[in-house]
Amino acid sequence: MNALILQSDFGYADGAVSAMYGVAVGVCDRLRIYDLTHDIPPYDIWEASNRLIQTLMYWPAGSVFVSVVDPGVGSTRRSIAVRTAGGQVVITPDNGTLTHVMQHTGLQEARVIDETVNRLPNSGESYTFHGRDIYAYTGARLASGLIAFEEIGPKIDPASLVTLPVVAPSLEGRSVRGTIDVLDVRFGSLWTNIPRELFLKLGVGHGGRVTVSITHYDRVIYKSVMLYARSFADANVGEPLLYANSLDCMAVAINQGSFAKAYSVGTGISWQIQLSAEG
Amino acid sequence: MNALILQSDFGYADGAVSAMYGVAVGVCDRLRIYDLTHDIPPYDIWEASNRLIQTLMYWPAGSVFVSVVDPGVGSTRRSIAVRTAGGQVVITPDNGTLTHVMQHTGLQEARVIDETVNRLPNSGESYTFHGRDIYAYTGARLASGLIAFEEIGPKIDPASLVTLPVVAPSLEGRSVRGTIDVLDVRFGSLWTNIPRELFLKLGVGHGGRVTVSITHYDRVIYKSVMLYARSFADANVGEPLLYANSLDCMAVAINQGSFAKAYSVGTGISWQIQLSAEG
Amino acid sequence: MNALILQSDFGYADGAVSAMYGVAVGVCDRLRIYDLTHDIPPYDIWEASNRLIQTLMYWPAGSVFVSVVDPGVGSTRRSIAVRTAGGQVVITPDNGTLTHVMQHTGLQEARVIDETVNRLPNSGESYTFHGRDIYAYTGARLASGLIAFEEIGPKIDPASLVTLPVVAPSLEGRSVRGTIDVLDVRFGSLWTNIPRELFLKLGVGHGGRVTVSITHYDRVIYKSVMLYARSFADANVGEPLLYANSLDCMAVAINQGSFAKAYSVGTGISWQIQLSAEG
Repeated sequence: MNALILQSDFGYADGAVSAMYGVAVGVCDRLRIYDLTHDIPPYDIWEASNRLIQTLMYWPAGSVFVSVVDPGVGSTRRSIAVRTAGGQVVITPDNGTLTHVMQHTGLQEARVIDETVNRLPNSGESYTFHGRDIYAYTGARLASGLIAFEEIGPKIDPASLVTLPVVAPSLEGRSVRGTIDVLDVRFGSLWTNIPRELFLKLGVGHGGRVTVSITHYDRVIYKSVMLYARSFADANVGEPLLYANSLDCMAVAINQGSFAKAYSVGTGISWQIQLSAEG
Repeated sequence: MNALILQSDFGYADGAVSAMYGVAVGVCDRLRIYDLTHDIPPYDIWEASNRLIQTLMYWPAGSVFVSVVDPGVGSTRRSIAVRTAGGQVVITPDNGTLTHVMQHTGLQEARVIDETVNRLPNSGESYTFHGRDIYAYTGARLASGLIAFEEIGPKIDPASLVTLPVVAPSLEGRSVRGTIDVLDVRFGSLWTNIPRELFLKLGVGHGGRVTVSITHYDRVIYKSVMLYARSFADANVGEPLLYANSLDCMAVAINQGSFAKAYSVGTGISWQIQLSAEG
Repeated sequence: MNALILQSDFGYADGAVSAMYGVAVGVCDRLRIYDLTHDIPPYDIWEASNRLIQTLMYWPAGSVFVSVVDPGVGSTRRSIAVRTAGGQVVITPDNGTLTHVMQHTGLQEARVIDETVNRLPNSGESYTFHGRDIYAYTGARLASGLIAFEEIGPKIDPASLVTLPVVAPSLEGRSVRGTIDVLDVRFGSLWTNIPRELFLKLGVGHGGRVTVSITHYDRVIYKSVMLYARSFADANVGEPLLYANSLDCMAVAINQGSFAKAYSVGTGISWQIQLSAEG
């Protein structure tokens, strides 16, 4: 029996998440069901994609993720299931939710869900709740072993999946450039798409100083020198720092403050960051 | 072993929900415990009643719901357990929390909890925490099979239960009237008490146009023509639409916006809505 | 198999909590994992300590709590595991998180975590995520029985643990004094550190009246007479009341209102409260 992990933009205030749980328990009452988060901002596929890559790798192979952020529900967008390189399964609308997973870990296989068979019985009339009637139902059947991955539906070319535009990080002389992908919401840290490995080519060690500049389109939002720290404890309280986050990418924070709030920093490919070695 | 599902207005920020879980795990460590929501606005029995009907039917027969929204805790209001027509059990104060369940699905049986026997041992001094000491404890014992439904306490007449005032939806000529029962909080949609079946008597099909008017007491809050859509994808981004929600009742939304915020719409029987066929 | 209960200041909006769950499920997929709360305000060790004492006692002996509120992550602060007088285990940074548990229930034994062996394999490079790689991992191994408490690491003197400053409640003539330790967030009640037993020495019974004065440093924030009520139902709607909370300590509330918001009351040892018998 594999774990079933749910993500959505439904929030926790009404019964939508619990209805998904109920359907899954109805499929198999011994199933272990967990949440990634249900606080994805409404319709924010970019953030859903980022939260998946932040989390997926910590779950055992065979774990089944259901991610429902679906502004195109009811349209002709496909419902898909993929097996990642690490062996986790993700069930989601084909709308870009897999962008970061495809980029960072890759896919073993993709299938389109055959909704004529993979659908909660007697749910024919509700066109607005695919999350419950298709995704949670199919995820629960897969996690509990009632159906095999092959029974989801026909195989499709992973290259045919919808992806969101991303900008690859790059090394240019004594600088690395990247984008601010997502916030560590609670602590106001910026998580970039610059791998630590790439940053290390600048030759800066822990305790070194780095010029960090952040631009939104062409406007400079922030430009200053900060410490490259092993962890928050190396910085004074209130001091900004550059560090490697739990995804092994470079991140920027204020120790015990919120960098994102201090400078009103957002996320996405229009938010660029450059890290330059001093001197 | 049946599922135990908890609902309350306790929020997630302190230890109150976890204390209920701890008591339930202490009753039986193999119990499967889930949440409906704990974000019911404080003391809002109307919303608790609506969230139950929104969710209950998706859980297997035998599932035990505990709902604790209890402005009258410590008063003489009764503690009750009911078995719904669908076979789920709900344990709750007798304060109107079952209004919508009684109206939509009906009850098989109701019992008043005998608190002299159904109470966490050594909990005699806490008058403010029935949720934990009576409801979660009794729900856990019932879900795990330690007691039978009949051991809850004496049978009572379901007609004796407290209900909140509701206004039945009605068909008048070329219009249907109803109330706005609850919001789909995250997406700002209005969920009415008008069944799709009743609306269909107007003879409007998907793609047709309907005049929607919303009044609060006698003041008109909104009156305009909108699309009756199969799903959100049929409307343009930012366009209002009328659709059948996951309860198979009529709902109003703005595609990828918030209708509730746009027009400051609230819920309850003072919020009336009329849907009229065009022409 | 014992329960694993997680607390943190990570919030629910990103993948940090789910990554801890994934690590724990990877240790043992039959483990029962629950939350205390993840809404501890960022870095607020005082509140983490209070939420533990509010909850711990309702969980069976052997339950394993992991509490990660860790402003000093990456510093030389120790990682510890303790067994409480009630037999529950708590794994946490040694930073004051155990202040109230030590004061109220006491400890049987304390050990420092040997991080060279109790650490998620291949997690060597992440200095910012002890919560996942050390605490959740070790908690899961302990709860599932893969390691014994003795294998955590060397025994240490409980008296060596870091504690936050507290002020003991006291009886002075016809008054008791104490501090406002924490809020019942959702309902705006103030929870004091004054045990009901101590208050009862004033000889006031249910229905009696008590002068309540609240000071912040030396400024009077509130001073008035209120009812000592058995429960909220004894007070009128909107009336303030004094009552014994679920920890059997004295608390102040407004029935169906928020005392904390009404008078902008905070928590901690600078917030003092005095309860005086009338007449």
